[in-house]
Amino acid sequence: MSDRILRLQHVEIRVPDLELCTAYYTEVLGLIETDRDTRDGVERVFLKCWDEREHHSLILREAPTHGLDHMSFKLTDASDVNYFQQKLEAAGVAVKRYAARELGPGWGEAIRFDSPSGHLVELTHGTERVGNMLPMTNPPPRPQDLVGIAPPRLDHVFVMAEDVEAFTRFFTEMLEFRLTEQILANDGHQLATFLEHSHTPHDIAVITGPNGALHHFAFWMDDWNGIRDAADTLAYHGVTIDVAPTRHGVTRGYTTYFFDPVGNRNELFTGGYWVDPDFEPITWTEEEMGRAIFYYHRQVNERFFTVHS
Amino acid sequence: MSDRILRLQHVEIRVPDLELCTAYYTEVLGLIETDRDTRDGVERVFLKCWDEREHHSLILREAPTHGLDHMSFKLTDASDVNYFQQKLEAAGVAVKRYAARELGPGWGEAIRFDSPSGHLVELTHGTERVGNMLPMTNPPPRPQDLVGIAPPRLDHVFVMAEDVEAFTRFFTEMLEFRLTEQILANDGHQLATFLEHSHTPHDIAVITGPNGALHHFAFWMDDWNGIRDAADTLAYHGVTIDVAPTRHGVTRGYTTYFFDPVGNRNELFTGGYWVDPDFEPITWTEEEMGRAIFYYHRQVNERFFTVHS
Amino acid sequence: MSDRILRLQHVEIRVPDLELCTAYYTEVLGLIETDRDTRDGVERVFLKCWDEREHHSLILREAPTHGLDHMSFKLTDASDVNYFQQKLEAAGVAVKRYAARELGPGWGEAIRFDSPSGHLVELTHGTERVGNMLPMTNPPPRPQDLVGIAPPRLDHVFVMAEDVEAFTRFFTEMLEFRLTEQILANDGHQLATFLEHSHTPHDIAVITGPNGALHHFAFWMDDWNGIRDAADTLAYHGVTIDVAPTRHGVTRGYTTYFFDPVGNRNELFTGGYWVDPDFEPITWTEEEMGRAIFYYHRQVNERFFTVHS
Amino acid sequence: MSDRILRLQHVEIRVPDLELCTAYYTEVLGLIETDRDTRDGVERVFLKCWDEREHHSLILREAPTHGLDHMSFKLTDASDVNYFQQKLEAAGVAVKRYAARELGPGWGEAIRFDSPSGHLVELTHGTERVGNMLPMTNPPPRPQDLVGIAPPRLDHVFVMAEDVEAFTRFFTEMLEFRLTEQILANDGHQLATFLEHSHTPHDIAVITGPNGALHHFAFWMDDWNGIRDAADTLAYHGVTIDVAPTRHGVTRGYTTYFFDPVGNRNELFTGGYWVDPDFEPITWTEEEMGRAIFYYHRQVNERFFTVHS
Repeated sequence: MSDRILRLQHVEIRVPDLELCTAYYTEVLGLIETDRDTRDGVERVFLKCWDEREHHSLILREAPTHGLDHMSFKLTDASDVNYFQQKLEAAGVAVKRYAARELGPGWGEAIRFDSPSGHLVELTHGTERVGNMLPMTNPPPRPQDLVGIAPPRLDHVFVMAEDVEAFTRFFTEMLEFRLTEQILANDGHQLATFLEHSHTPHDIAVITGPNGALHHFAFWMDDWNGIRDAADTLAYHGVTIDVAPTRHGVTRGYTTYFFDPVGNRNELFTGGYWVDPDFEPITWTEEEMGRAIFYYHRQVNERFFTVHS
Repeated sequence: MSDRILRLQHVEIRVPDLELCTAYYTEVLGLIETDRDTRDGVERVFLKCWDEREHHSLILREAPTHGLDHMSFKLTDASDVNYFQQKLEAAGVAVKRYAARELGPGWGEAIRFDSPSGHLVELTHGTERVGNMLPMTNPPPRPQDLVGIAPPRLDHVFVMAEDVEAFTRFFTEMLEFRLTEQILANDGHQLATFLEHSHTPHDIAVITGPNGALHHFAFWMDDWNGIRDAADTLAYHGVTIDVAPTRHGVTRGYTTYFFDPVGNRNELFTGGYWVDPDFEPITWTEEEMGRAIFYYHRQVNERFFTVHS
Repeated sequence: MSDRILRLQHVEIRVPDLELCTAYYTEVLGLIETDRDTRDGVERVFLKCWDEREHHSLILREAPTHGLDHMSFKLTDASDVNYFQQKLEAAGVAVKRYAARELGPGWGEAIRFDSPSGHLVELTHGTERVGNMLPMTNPPPRPQDLVGIAPPRLDHVFVMAEDVEAFTRFFTEMLEFRLTEQILANDGHQLATFLEHSHTPHDIAVITGPNGALHHFAFWMDDWNGIRDAADTLAYHGVTIDVAPTRHGVTRGYTTYFFDPVGNRNELFTGGYWVDPDFEPITWTEEEMGRAIFYYHRQVNERFFTVHS
Repeated sequence: MSDRILRLQHVEIRVPDLELCTAYYTEVLGLIETDRDTRDGVERVFLKCWDEREHHSLILREAPTHGLDHMSFKLTDASDVNYFQQKLEAAGVAVKRYAARELGPGWGEAIRFDSPSGHLVELTHGTERVGNMLPMTNPPPRPQDLVGIAPPRLDHVFVMAEDVEAFTRFFTEMLEFRLTEQILANDGHQLATFLEHSHTPHDIAVITGPNGALHHFAFWMDDWNGIRDAADTLAYHGVTIDVAPTRHGVTRGYTTYFFDPVGNRNELFTGGYWVDPDFEPITWTEEEMGRAIFYYHRQVNERFFTVHS
């Protein structure tokens, strides 16, 4: 079955200190501020990575707490908005529909609904295209004036759910994601699952934890050296590094985790493998969960499971 | 529009010395021999990369000359075989249909037809799945007993055509590939185009040259260091390196080119960027063609344009 | 003042299981066994790294416990044996002198004495030269048949001492090492020091701990990617990784720590900087000790300070 | 014998356009301008790399032509100035002696003399120390505000001589350099030699060519990825890249060559190996000269031999 969802379009996160977080995401992480908007008295800052061609991939939303407001996935065709609205409503899911630009500047046409875990999920088509930071004719491979870490694009989001299996069923059956890897408890139930549409190990993943929680969202880096250089930049700026550069067993990817100034966990990720739609999922056992998450350490620091937003 | 073609499935190449080439592709390039087959008196060796899960991605065919026998693309669904057969025939293209295993061991159901440039093109579904070289439970990121260069997978094919525009029209209109980059002559016609289905810069590319010619086929490597280590291995084995590790302007990718023992050009490729279906193509001008192809050198060695198979 | 000591020549370590450790150091770490010798009923295995040109850089000594038997530094000239014997004896240090081959096969002329911390220290000249694993004419950059991690050479040794200042004075005044970096307690005394002769950040380092203890010895790797690949190999073989690939503040180097099968800590190290003899030492404060040791984490796991051999 | 010469201290090059070259060396190469000085109507700009602790490593000298004014090596001890003056004069070499600061701001005490190839050679001690760009307490591994390529330090100089053997004899006998590698003609005479004091493959090298010519001078980079990123920066700024990133057979090093705006060839270099004073030299044959110089290409572009300054 072809993919009606392409990839993660954006995440909107809550931040109690909008200016501090804007400074962090632009100067340390190196994203570009593309817009600001205030609706219903709530100010939001719109950001994108340098190589993304659309108006935003990260939205900071002024709020008393940190955490995830919603995640949004990009639809392949305009007709896919109707397709999913009908499919979800037929299954009894309450869906709200929004016209283009109704939800904010540069915003596409969208539907929104809650996952069984209480996460607000959006599917969208037609986000305004603003171009990446390179010319369309004879471009260099990379702008020379980037600041900070400057990842080229958003990669995936990782959330928590009390019932990982219900979450996974919803995302695979309703939203047609495919399972690439899973961590199974000794009794056979899913502790964590990794789901994709973009032929990579994951566009979204979920691990056992409180409903509605955000574990982290991740930006793509080009290689293991880039992860290292980014850690240097983080350390230089005094950013709290949660997990220094290392390797996952799940996804085979390279990673470093850290926190934004208000406590949302960020990841830089690279590596992985190509996934065909007929990919047979990989299973990790509960005994090897440590290695699944951090392949070199074989155990996971307590903070990794207990701190979320 | 969703993708009915996923990616390049395999290439079959002609080799005058089957054993010599099998030794090269298994011991230097580090592919795995999965099968042998003789039909109509012609012997073929079936090879795959270590991380590929299907029966073959490269087939060596005993023949008096070197060059490309055909290229094959993987279809998303079984029903896509019919879809493309009807679409092509409706456009007046002669299509041959083959049942699974009819064309060789592990072979999927397939249709075959000629492109306007005289290349034999196959679309296939259902290649036998044989698994990669890792266990399905708690796998390490990589087998430890790989030999030679051992790229994880096939990446793309690059051919030549007298009429690049006709070739490009056929692949975009009939096969629904999308244009990512093009090199335009001063008079505006296309000198080379880069086409994709897999959300990468190219699954197939074409440059002005003799109809039916193969310029090269490429395997994926994980990073720039891997390209360098591969060049060490090539040099150690006395393989003729056509272009030492460098960077493309087009695709932004990293590359090295070299020749198999009978003169088919191989590439190792990594890098690139994510491509959405609504990607606006990048254009390179004739003046910057050198930089487009080899970004650091700004000129292309004569051999690159004139030697093909 | 010119350097009469060039670099670390070898370390001899105690291992309760000689065959298990030989298998580990040859098959996982990828050293080459060059010799075996039994003297006074004690069997020893002699090992070297592939790019070292001398008979041994690591000696495994059958013993009931693990830990360091002695460390040995290479002298520049034959006359330096006398020079240091006289200098040490003039300072009241008891020195034993050994003829070439007296201490074992391939062994140079040597003197031995105890440091104030109770470590047995050797200075030697004339270790037998056996060549690296490459031809002397038209060599490739690296052998193609290496197994395991295969670091090119031994780099440094890191020990513990109750009185770091006395240790440092002995090594700088008697053995003419130069201080490159130091970690100072709030009261100003040295908690750890880093000392060199080879124009690198350290040939030997010492941290507060039990006299006579070995913290680790380290092999050189060529780059950060090599450290990562090594960690993959360690994890594959089930080796206990103490500290996954990360960066030091002190030395700026990249590192991973792990344990041999009997509990001696090994390190793989790369990076650092060039050191002139007039190098002004760098100081780390007690508050920043965590960052000094592990630059990204900013804190040191308890095991790092308490586990030694 | 201990090393009285430590390493290359600086090179002074002639540049017809002082401001253009200053802009190139500071903004593209990323060196730091530390001083300017005009003596005898000749203006000079003093530059250093970010991690060097002394006043200068590159001096640009206003002149009608490009090329090498002189190369200078750093002496270990103040007494080594006298040592070499006496040794050279005893051998009949005319030596000029200069007091500290006599030759320019920050300059050490120095002697100067001509090599048999007509190159002006300086030995110096006491160059003013100005510190690198990091604090002496709790330093980060790298400043965050570097611009351009920003190599940490100068590495080596490569010149041409009609009589390579006479040049090599002078540098090994008079200046006590050690031979690490040589390229021999079929008749056995030296076509090129590589000489060191710093325990690296070369501090100076020489190849057959016009007396007095400069082939290139090289800056150190930390790894192969750094060489690649530097090539991106060079290409972005339109700098003429002579040789894109590749590997040497001699030295095993990684390299890229390019030209400053007035035609002096620059190199970025990394890799190599540790050299003990008792290192047995490596020999390359005339047949393998291509591979010796560019290990992957096996042949050297004409420009490499014929263009110099």
